[in-house]
Amino acid sequence: MTVLLTPQELEAKLRQIGAERYHRLHPFHRLLHDGKCSKGQVQAWALNRYYYQAMIPIKDARLIGRCEDPAVRREWRSRLVDHDGNAEGDGGIARWLRLTDGLGLERDYVTSTRGLLAGTRFAVDAYVHFVAERSLLEAIASSLTELFSPDIISERVQGMLANYAFATRETLAYFEKRPPQAARDADFALTYVKQHARTPADQQAVLAALEFKCSVLWSMLDALHHAYVAPRHVPPGAFTPKPEDA
Amino acid sequence: MTVLLTPQELEAKLRQIGAERYHRLHPFHRLLHDGKCSKGQVQAWALNRYYYQAMIPIKDARLIGRCEDPAVRREWRSRLVDHDGNAEGDGGIARWLRLTDGLGLERDYVTSTRGLLAGTRFAVDAYVHFVAERSLLEAIASSLTELFSPDIISERVQGMLANYAFATRETLAYFEKRPPQAARDADFALTYVKQHARTPADQQAVLAALEFKCSVLWSMLDALHHAYVAPRHVPPGAFTPKPEDA
Repeated sequence: MTVLLTPQELEAKLRQIGAERYHRLHPFHRLLHDGKCSKGQVQAWALNRYYYQAMIPIKDARLIGRCEDPAVRREWRSRLVDHDGNAEGDGGIARWLRLTDGLGLERDYVTSTRGLLAGTRFAVDAYVHFVAERSLLEAIASSLTELFSPDIISERVQGMLANYAFATRETLAYFEKRPPQAARDADFALTYVKQHARTPADQQAVLAALEFKCSVLWSMLDALHHAYVAPRHVPPGAFTPKPEDA
Repeated sequence: MTVLLTPQELEAKLRQIGAERYHRLHPFHRLLHDGKCSKGQVQAWALNRYYYQAMIPIKDARLIGRCEDPAVRREWRSRLVDHDGNAEGDGGIARWLRLTDGLGLERDYVTSTRGLLAGTRFAVDAYVHFVAERSLLEAIASSLTELFSPDIISERVQGMLANYAFATRETLAYFEKRPPQAARDADFALTYVKQHARTPADQQAVLAALEFKCSVLWSMLDALHHAYVAPRHVPPGAFTPKPEDA
């Protein structure tokens, strides 16, 4: 029943998934973009998103660690450099911590992940496990949300610069660096899956991997929205904004 | 700084975690117990909880599969019997499907898990991974939410029998069987952790394992509440109740 798609048809279906399921469509993204989040809500977002940032190089290293092609390993290695940098204070994780600094969160508290929502932890860990356990093709395909990230990043930066006092070029440094990195990475991954998904089953697995990844990002914002947007339901033990920031 | 607790003190701390973090305290449980859920909300709860039921024997088999003591393996094996039964149609999973049948959900749809919330899947999978990856002591300790389940089950059954037309002895057969099984299992696991957690670090790991498991159950209800209780936010692809059941 499932037919073999041309590479162009496969790409069109991947882009369609992004148009329907990427977290740019999530209500929490719109609140953030429109400057409607309180400081406490932005803190909660940045604190939870930190765990995603922190686990990305672990996810990427697991992918490299099961990849037999040196050319793919070399290419994928640039992601480790992007996130971990070449020295202390360099790289995407360090730049993310400048954002949480700017928001007045203690570094030790952020990096301990003590205040994390369980929903964030389980979603991010699901991504790491997916990449470690599924086929290499599916692991690579699950990174394809980066096809859609330049747009969401530019919306976020515009919305935050326009609306929040803490938003400066320094605290938002992470977002300035990401779009060209994401575009380069997405090009590579898209070319890879178009070349390597050669059966209908492979192509369906690629599409399902991107849907899975969209559900990871979506469910992170669901957890955040449920906990911190009225009516708030902060789960036991999770970060609670100060009353004046709520 | 952390001191060695007596077995009685350890048990008291475990029970304290239950008193503060068990999902009996979650707003969704109260809605269900008080008969305030629509049919669609009960359907969504039963559909999502099915995935938890279905993965429990997989979790238990992974625990048995890393356990070197035949006496513990024999004891833990009774959990496989409870959930998988001795024949087709027998056991906890089969009894759970009588509940989803009674709610008018198609079996193929339920067992396909196509309509599952991502938040449910990630939470349940986090539990399976925890049991497979942490120490045997932590894996056993993570089952200790069963200490608190007889109460929640009796509240659920009373609330459902009093308030919902679909609730009959047949559709609620699952709940009738569980309390004695859970009490037996919890006794074994509690005795085990009290005997085997002999250092402060082990005891802290046991307490953290129970907190982790409480967060699994809590985050399942958070996902359900966020998606299906007004203002509803059903994520892309998840089960959507029929308008007349919403």
